Amino acid sequence: MADPPAFSGSCPLPLTDHPRILLAHGGGGRLMHDLLETIFLPAFANPALEARHDSAVLDVGGTRLAFTTDAYVVRPLFFPGGDIGTLAVNGTVNDLAMSGARPLWLSAGFILEEGLPIDTLTRVVASMRQSAQAADVQLVTGDTKVVDQGKGDGIFICTAGVGQVAHALDIAPRSVRPGDAILLSGDLGRHGVAIISVREGLAFESPIESDCTPLAAPVLALLEAGIQLHCLRDLTRGGLATALIEIAQGSGLHLLIDEAFIPVTEAVQGACELLGFDPLYVANEGRLVAFVPAAEADRAVAILRAHPQGTGACRIGQVASDPAGQVTLRSRIGASRFLDLLSGEQLPRIC
Amino acid sequence: MADPPAFSGSCPLPLTDHPRILLAHGGGGRLMHDLLETIFLPAFANPALEARHDSAVLDVGGTRLAFTTDAYVVRPLFFPGGDIGTLAVNGTVNDLAMSGARPLWLSAGFILEEGLPIDTLTRVVASMRQSAQAADVQLVTGDTKVVDQGKGDGIFICTAGVGQVAHALDIAPRSVRPGDAILLSGDLGRHGVAIISVREGLAFESPIESDCTPLAAPVLALLEAGIQLHCLRDLTRGGLATALIEIAQGSGLHLLIDEAFIPVTEAVQGACELLGFDPLYVANEGRLVAFVPAAEADRAVAILRAHPQGTGACRIGQVASDPAGQVTLRSRIGASRFLDLLSGEQLPRIC
Repeated sequence: MADPPAFSGSCPLPLTDHPRILLAHGGGGRLMHDLLETIFLPAFANPALEARHDSAVLDVGGTRLAFTTDAYVVRPLFFPGGDIGTLAVNGTVNDLAMSGARPLWLSAGFILEEGLPIDTLTRVVASMRQSAQAADVQLVTGDTKVVDQGKGDGIFICTAGVGQVAHALDIAPRSVRPGDAILLSGDLGRHGVAIISVREGLAFESPIESDCTPLAAPVLALLEAGIQLHCLRDLTRGGLATALIEIAQGSGLHLLIDEAFIPVTEAVQGACELLGFDPLYVANEGRLVAFVPAAEADRAVAILRAHPQGTGACRIGQVASDPAGQVTLRSRIGASRFLDLLSGEQLPRIC
Repeated sequence: MADPPAFSGSCPLPLTDHPRILLAHGGGGRLMHDLLETIFLPAFANPALEARHDSAVLDVGGTRLAFTTDAYVVRPLFFPGGDIGTLAVNGTVNDLAMSGARPLWLSAGFILEEGLPIDTLTRVVASMRQSAQAADVQLVTGDTKVVDQGKGDGIFICTAGVGQVAHALDIAPRSVRPGDAILLSGDLGRHGVAIISVREGLAFESPIESDCTPLAAPVLALLEAGIQLHCLRDLTRGGLATALIEIAQGSGLHLLIDEAFIPVTEAVQGACELLGFDPLYVANEGRLVAFVPAAEADRAVAILRAHPQGTGACRIGQVASDPAGQVTLRSRIGASRFLDLLSGEQLPRIC
């Protein structure tokens, strides 16, 4: 299958405008895509990378593997509902799950700053152990480096993951079809709001906890039930809006979503209003969108809801053809608007 | 096979003496081993990790895979003979090769500091591309994060690698046998001296270049020739001495090496004398030791020498039984001494 014309409209020589790296180059928005399209993809051109999916799907000796990596630089290291260790396990497990893979093994590279309390490292490693057990993966190889005080920020962790792909589907943006239903596994915005509330010292009436959780189990349940998954994407930096825009561009189709169907808790909604954030763009760490044939949508929602990670699952929209590569949001009052990638940075170092 | 009693003597509650991370915790010596034994190994106990080898060897669907990771924080980013990009590819390729695996795929996680010139990133990525081509691996998945100015140091890179293990050998410390010959693939100390010379602004008569190079081709040649490889280890942080001590402890055997047989160029020897370094402990990035049955040693050396990465290959010692877990160096004047792990840090941020 030919590679999709993903992101083709996003890069009119942008890096000449930014001769230095900005925080927004890591934010999941337009500048990060520019970096990808201008520097990384041309250098390492190969079909797996060009699929621009959460993990590469590869064949070795007749076995299909998924392989992925993420670097974690979240600040603060500990936040309501998790810490950098839970993120480093669940984030990478979720990238594997988005290929429909069963996560098997993780690697972990630690970059520690001189002066870090050993107790802090011990707490983070304990979280990683617990998360790995909960996600049923084994951490089998690792490395530790230490950098001088003032040249790091406590702990950075880079995990890579390998999983086995036991199905024959091509779960990717290029497999999305007009008429597909768009499903969301739960409410939006908790991870981003949990982080910013600690960072800014905000106290809400009811504390908002990160949604950080492993998503492999509900995905494997969908596959076992024979649901024809066309595409999956977990919602991280850039939130739901960015994930959908990437899939619209990768599929060359038009996605329509309905604001009234998108669950956001009152607490998150209130915090977003206070902070001036749009929940559609706020980061999540335990939520996914799934694209399935409309006829299978109700069954898929029921399967997701049967899992603790998917109790809030719902159908939020559908796929059409034109205008290609666009996402339309129908607001609660019936107005429609196109969603666009953020050009700046909403919340730096969210994961 | 039971796990070896590796490193068992190295950890009398050491971390109570060091409540905070020191640079030496990343240096490859005693403190790094303490960290491993006290925090990481107990948390993630599993057979692959407990093998304490450069990469984990795993079975998936009847195929044997090698999986490994390394974080790279070298300072400066560019040095004679390479840069952080060549290191990030070759270092991980070499860890795969030390399991006798054919390296197939790499992932790369970038942690960039706000303010990094885009040109610097472009140069590093170009080096990675070139090194990946030379090592015949594909970079198939990646991630980029940006941290605030003053919370990073230009570029950190974490690569993970997956390779295929096509042989049936157990290439690991536990497979070393008394009587084995110990082979070294070339001269020592170039990488460490290249780094320190830039860092300290030292000018030598003839510039000393890093030995950074991929080692998979000569290892695969040894396997194809039917050499019974018992153990392989590439020499990185801590140099030859540390690698041999780890293998002595992992095998429970006694390794004897002869200083007169260990190649060190005059330039490196002179630099080490000037700087007060022992070349046996200086880092390399393109050198390996191999343990093979004595009867196959000459043939193995000839095969290594036929490769550009192994032209300086030679036999440097042999394996005996007692005293178990020790490495003895016979000096040029005939005196013998045990080698020990460095307790401090010789050269921080060498890779």
